[in-house]
Amino acid sequence: MRAEIITIGDEILIGQIVDSNSAYIGKSLSKIGVQVKYITSIGDDRTAILSALQLANSRVDLVLITGGLGPTKDDITKKTLAEFFQDTLVLSQKVLSHIEDLWKSFIKQPLLQVNKDQAMVLSKAEILTNQNGSAPGMWIEKDQTVFVSMPGVPYEMKSIVTTELLPRLIQRFQLPVIVNRTLLTQGMGESMIAERIVDWENRLDPSIKLAYLPNLGRVRLRLSSTHHDKQLVESKVQTAIDELLPLIEDIFVGFEDDRSIETIIGEMLVKNSQTLSLAESCTGGAIAERLTSFPGASRYFVGGLVSYATSIKEQVLGVEGQLIKDHGVVSEEVAIQMAHKAKILFKSDYAISTTGNAGPTTSEGRVSVGTVCMALATPTGVDSYSFQFGNSRERVINKAINKAFELLYNELLKNASKEV
Amino acid sequence: MRAEIITIGDEILIGQIVDSNSAYIGKSLSKIGVQVKYITSIGDDRTAILSALQLANSRVDLVLITGGLGPTKDDITKKTLAEFFQDTLVLSQKVLSHIEDLWKSFIKQPLLQVNKDQAMVLSKAEILTNQNGSAPGMWIEKDQTVFVSMPGVPYEMKSIVTTELLPRLIQRFQLPVIVNRTLLTQGMGESMIAERIVDWENRLDPSIKLAYLPNLGRVRLRLSSTHHDKQLVESKVQTAIDELLPLIEDIFVGFEDDRSIETIIGEMLVKNSQTLSLAESCTGGAIAERLTSFPGASRYFVGGLVSYATSIKEQVLGVEGQLIKDHGVVSEEVAIQMAHKAKILFKSDYAISTTGNAGPTTSEGRVSVGTVCMALATPTGVDSYSFQFGNSRERVINKAINKAFELLYNELLKNASKEV
Repeated sequence: MRAEIITIGDEILIGQIVDSNSAYIGKSLSKIGVQVKYITSIGDDRTAILSALQLANSRVDLVLITGGLGPTKDDITKKTLAEFFQDTLVLSQKVLSHIEDLWKSFIKQPLLQVNKDQAMVLSKAEILTNQNGSAPGMWIEKDQTVFVSMPGVPYEMKSIVTTELLPRLIQRFQLPVIVNRTLLTQGMGESMIAERIVDWENRLDPSIKLAYLPNLGRVRLRLSSTHHDKQLVESKVQTAIDELLPLIEDIFVGFEDDRSIETIIGEMLVKNSQTLSLAESCTGGAIAERLTSFPGASRYFVGGLVSYATSIKEQVLGVEGQLIKDHGVVSEEVAIQMAHKAKILFKSDYAISTTGNAGPTTSEGRVSVGTVCMALATPTGVDSYSFQFGNSRERVINKAINKAFELLYNELLKNASKEV
Repeated sequence: MRAEIITIGDEILIGQIVDSNSAYIGKSLSKIGVQVKYITSIGDDRTAILSALQLANSRVDLVLITGGLGPTKDDITKKTLAEFFQDTLVLSQKVLSHIEDLWKSFIKQPLLQVNKDQAMVLSKAEILTNQNGSAPGMWIEKDQTVFVSMPGVPYEMKSIVTTELLPRLIQRFQLPVIVNRTLLTQGMGESMIAERIVDWENRLDPSIKLAYLPNLGRVRLRLSSTHHDKQLVESKVQTAIDELLPLIEDIFVGFEDDRSIETIIGEMLVKNSQTLSLAESCTGGAIAERLTSFPGASRYFVGGLVSYATSIKEQVLGVEGQLIKDHGVVSEEVAIQMAHKAKILFKSDYAISTTGNAGPTTSEGRVSVGTVCMALATPTGVDSYSFQFGNSRERVINKAINKAFELLYNELLKNASKEV
């Protein structure tokens, strides 16, 4: 089953928002065996919408449309869909009651005519309930192609996909199994890895696709394959992985299919009943933010200090003023004290510190943009490191975050292997 | 001039990465007067790439292609481009020298044949130098359509867009002016705003497009217009804004065209020589991360404590244990003490605190998922607030961040108007 995602909205084309809906839908469909072949973004423009629908109708079996269903005048998706399907809009009492309930329970503002108009739906459509908003999803078929229209608000779209769309697709179609396995590596560039595993890659079963996904010091290797026989495809991919692992054991971090590096680290700490704290300067809270964006972080992450101003490093954390004068605030010496003091302040088993210049400018006497010093305090000591992460602020911060997780992961792994 | 962006990579279709390249390119082109009409994402698949190029050739004047230029086998964009343009790949000595320099200066690993192969380029193409990587950009024309191929690594693509692509487009074509102005509002839903400004919207010059962009408690209103006469289009849009502003003055936050709310708040604080600190619990460092993602945050942001564990609130921040027992850790009482103690600990003029349950689960005796208490300490006192932000962890955290900025912005605005 081949699918196309069509996202509608001028704000996507002019780059005012990043279209994250497509990635969510792509991932959800991929898991149930639907292959997304195209993602198309177009503006709130009648002609463009009609052409995109026509093209999708001719080349895929399933079309997922998001956006342009709001109550305001710039949202023209619904009436354009009516035109495309030669259909009319009719009032759905069920949707209207749902909207009235929403307004009574949550919105607590007057229900306007434009809000009531959200209950106008295509007469031929099956309604997909939007638990989190007023614009319903609509399922409609034409020439053997299924079209599903959903609102563009991510929170609303996600609820429709999970509770309405996926169950219907699974029930309705005989879907094949798509297996995607991703191996996370660190410490080696993609071309070096490719050279190292060239013989394995040449021998790889042609039904398995290999992709290299490099990103800020890490390379992910993704193996994917599709087949109706679940057992067959899973065992083929597993065999390929079994042959690959010995070739990359020194750079292999873990499987990333369902777990991020943050989750992997968290589980290792929880298993050991150990805790982590942070003293962040140049990363400005971004490491804490990444850790706590995953549920369950409170089981191992006790807290962190964002010591952005130098005075805070001295007064709150207790780094010696003389040390900062002697070595500069961006130095391994200061990073070591930051990690050490954080470990004591937060009474944690591990502590990570960052101090650096993320840019864009270097003030007089300061280190160059991109220089980052980090330290990792462990139950037995403190190790420090210096890095040069280039001259893009966003990139420097992201590389520092990745490096922090890498350092901690390696340390935890070392200890885990000692235990064995 | 009409453009299409084509992003290539299976990882986009299966949702393994979010395609942020398109937004960056869309924004960059929009600024110089090129209208992006389509964004198309396809896999690393010869047939799909050829069809997409063919379709783009028939419907736009400019095609921007990213992805699939890496050194590994899964990257097939270059050879597929050669097929499409009926061209051959030839060695560019200039690109090869650049790659050799990069490896000598930064990579410091052996230069492999696959790395050297990056210097193979389409014979008909003009080379766009990639200062940050080994895969060059290529500019090639066919039937009056300009095609530009760039690597998919955002850092490399951005450098080519800025230093090579935009200057060439500006020099080469007579581009119209596209004016986009965005007004940020808060505290009112899009349908209420629409109802309030309906007369203004009906009178709006037809050459001006209005869009409503709702997002987590804020609505952005974007006015856009395109014309060759810069003065004319700018004055038309300005007139429309002048008429709109009196209608929304109670909910208007500021213009967002070049400045985010974080930047606006930062500038207000810097102007007053005031500082800000944070005591974050449920937001886990995310407010600090947002503030410090912008250059110049160090001029007003001194630091923050991520007091994730309850013990940290007591031991590091000094919140009274009895208060937590009496009111619960998620309470306005605790939020008030957190903000108050943070203001003292960090010696700042303002302090924001958050404590809540971002979910996904509620442990026994705890408040329901989505409940967030916040406090804002100012030079003269502390105000506290309670919110219910729903049941999606990501959404709860993001709503809390937006609310924090809204509370602080309103407070700063109140003080600014007092001064006048």
